[in-house]
Amino acid sequence: MGAEAPYNVVPEGSVITPKGFKAGGLHCGLKKTTRHDLGAIVCDVPAAAAAVYTTNVFQAAPLKVTRESIGQEGRLRAVLVNSGNANACTGKQGEEDAYVMRSRFAEQLQVEPHLVAVASTGVIGELLKMDRVLGGIQEMPARLMGTPEGADDFSQAILTTDLVQKTVCVAVEVDGRTVHIAGAAKGSGMIHPNMATMLGFVTTDAAIGNESLQYLLRQATDVTFNMITVDGDTSTNDMLLAMASGLAGNEELTQRHPDWEAFSAGLRYVCEILAKAIARDGEGATKLVEVQVGGAITDESARAIAKTVIGSSLVKSAMFGADANWGRIIGAIGRAGQPVNPETVDIRLGNIVVLEQSRPVPFDEEKALVYLKGDTVHIYCELHMGEGRATGWGCDLTYDYVRINAAYRT
Amino acid sequence: MGAEAPYNVVPEGSVITPKGFKAGGLHCGLKKTTRHDLGAIVCDVPAAAAAVYTTNVFQAAPLKVTRESIGQEGRLRAVLVNSGNANACTGKQGEEDAYVMRSRFAEQLQVEPHLVAVASTGVIGELLKMDRVLGGIQEMPARLMGTPEGADDFSQAILTTDLVQKTVCVAVEVDGRTVHIAGAAKGSGMIHPNMATMLGFVTTDAAIGNESLQYLLRQATDVTFNMITVDGDTSTNDMLLAMASGLAGNEELTQRHPDWEAFSAGLRYVCEILAKAIARDGEGATKLVEVQVGGAITDESARAIAKTVIGSSLVKSAMFGADANWGRIIGAIGRAGQPVNPETVDIRLGNIVVLEQSRPVPFDEEKALVYLKGDTVHIYCELHMGEGRATGWGCDLTYDYVRINAAYRT
Repeated sequence: MGAEAPYNVVPEGSVITPKGFKAGGLHCGLKKTTRHDLGAIVCDVPAAAAAVYTTNVFQAAPLKVTRESIGQEGRLRAVLVNSGNANACTGKQGEEDAYVMRSRFAEQLQVEPHLVAVASTGVIGELLKMDRVLGGIQEMPARLMGTPEGADDFSQAILTTDLVQKTVCVAVEVDGRTVHIAGAAKGSGMIHPNMATMLGFVTTDAAIGNESLQYLLRQATDVTFNMITVDGDTSTNDMLLAMASGLAGNEELTQRHPDWEAFSAGLRYVCEILAKAIARDGEGATKLVEVQVGGAITDESARAIAKTVIGSSLVKSAMFGADANWGRIIGAIGRAGQPVNPETVDIRLGNIVVLEQSRPVPFDEEKALVYLKGDTVHIYCELHMGEGRATGWGCDLTYDYVRINAAYRT
Repeated sequence: MGAEAPYNVVPEGSVITPKGFKAGGLHCGLKKTTRHDLGAIVCDVPAAAAAVYTTNVFQAAPLKVTRESIGQEGRLRAVLVNSGNANACTGKQGEEDAYVMRSRFAEQLQVEPHLVAVASTGVIGELLKMDRVLGGIQEMPARLMGTPEGADDFSQAILTTDLVQKTVCVAVEVDGRTVHIAGAAKGSGMIHPNMATMLGFVTTDAAIGNESLQYLLRQATDVTFNMITVDGDTSTNDMLLAMASGLAGNEELTQRHPDWEAFSAGLRYVCEILAKAIARDGEGATKLVEVQVGGAITDESARAIAKTVIGSSLVKSAMFGADANWGRIIGAIGRAGQPVNPETVDIRLGNIVVLEQSRPVPFDEEKALVYLKGDTVHIYCELHMGEGRATGWGCDLTYDYVRINAAYRT
């Protein structure tokens, strides 16, 4: 952010702040508690739509259905999300169930089925209790609101084991008009992996074609959602979906539009805030760890290195222990499979220099301990090879991670 | 093994069982305790030598020196190993120290320096206390023994945080003569990563050229040491070294020799036993986890999948919790970046089928719990795509892993 960012954060904003969107959530009975487990975002007009999906070979049924919906026209009127059951590894029946979710909600909204997307998160390998889902769908239209309450209900409905809701909104000037970009997400890594999944939903009232939106969403994902690591595991259900209503009334955003970069920066910021919130809410995490790599031969190379450092169990354990253990950081840099000059690496923890030109620098251990005990830790790695840069986010590895993941099914 | 294996295990065998080798160890003062911290294996004749090194970009000084020694003639008379200090990230001084270790021990043995290899394991980024090392080197010749005691002293001297010594010996018939192959190793992953490192030492009295030995050692490493994962971190000091004295008197082993395959199998078995011992002794581990992948399109593909499953923090946590959580296994298979048909995967835990053709199979949870509480767990993944097969080994992820690695330096 800062004075020079081409966007302003809207503190109370949410997915319904962009013009044309309503949201809602309710409890239909998929979760054992009374927490919401079915949510929807609906747009008054057919919104330009784009999505990015998990790279896992095993993709859950709703991903197939959503891909088909968007593929048909590049537009969506709504997305329906359930938590409590991932509808993954559920075969033909699971696919049919996802199609039925889509068509029933489309009927309720009186729109064509291919204008509806579906997403699921929760237990793998169990069939959806469709009677409950269908009951919830029938009730949903009455629960949709263009108010913060509706957005709040939606944000709750998509959570599984998340500790906090994750939502963000920014305003960008486009053609002198105010365009909003907002997002909601869930996920804390493939935490309780049978209750897995990162889901992200972005709404905007910008006028933008679906192909341009897809381009920007992919670009933003590469430097945000794809740069977070909680435990290296990728869910079968991950999905990031964007809908643009166009109701802000700007001229259609294309790469030649003078405000293209501002919009792009706003979208990237929304994705970054959501991604960081997911990393900080990683299973058992006590802190957010940010790794910046500079001086790599390319940005791609820097990304690979940042992800290796942030994904190292040893680095993560050291962060939990507030241990300024740079040997683990350099070990991770060295095994990332990227070009690195072993003689020219600098490492800083916050502003504490611990390694310069690959040689240990004496530092104040007490000061380092205080810094590393904070709730956010920045690790800077400068390779002095080229201009490539990247930032990645993760969390520490704690007793609670093991407790949560060892004890889940038993 | 079994009746058909072309080798026999020698229960009391060790690195001195092959003809021509002596070994020893002593405490020179690098470790704070009184445990041995300097060890050596010496051969009566110049042994054909081969080695495999860490792929980490940051390679410790002794690796450079050993590479140079072997590069000169492909022969070694001795290897000198210290624990307690890795001599890594120590710059020019560290390199000089490694050269001095080599030349002083060569003087003691009255051999040329390039016939001596050196290896180190321990703290990163601190200079060796060379007065202590040199004192130990002077004392070493008197401690070398061609007896189990000498081998035992050596095995102790190379340990850092390992809980158990790791040693193995087999006998193979070559030209109707008995050839011995033995090994000793240390390492429990990059445990206490500043006390890092996998080190392995293989001795044999087979007559074999150094290039053939290098070929077989690399081949064996790919399916043994390279198939273990404790936490995915690779040390700066990993090294596997083999020496062949030739004193068994067989005709030189080449690929055309009728007993080439038998010798190869024996060497592979020695490496496999050491690798599995390292995995079982992983930091905080309560059990050995073996992952077998079959039906992949190639062996390489199977290896990549096996390593992804065995390296998954979620799978490892589930094994600690004795949780038959196949969703995590299929999640790991699907993100390995390898060709997998999402409709045709079978998964077994021991002999308990949990997934068939990618569909959940009801199983006896109680029976699974009992099985998974054992000290060795076998996970079988059959992909039904091709003939590719691989086996990998690792351990569970436990509270103790986090405790050990969070608390190391503080």
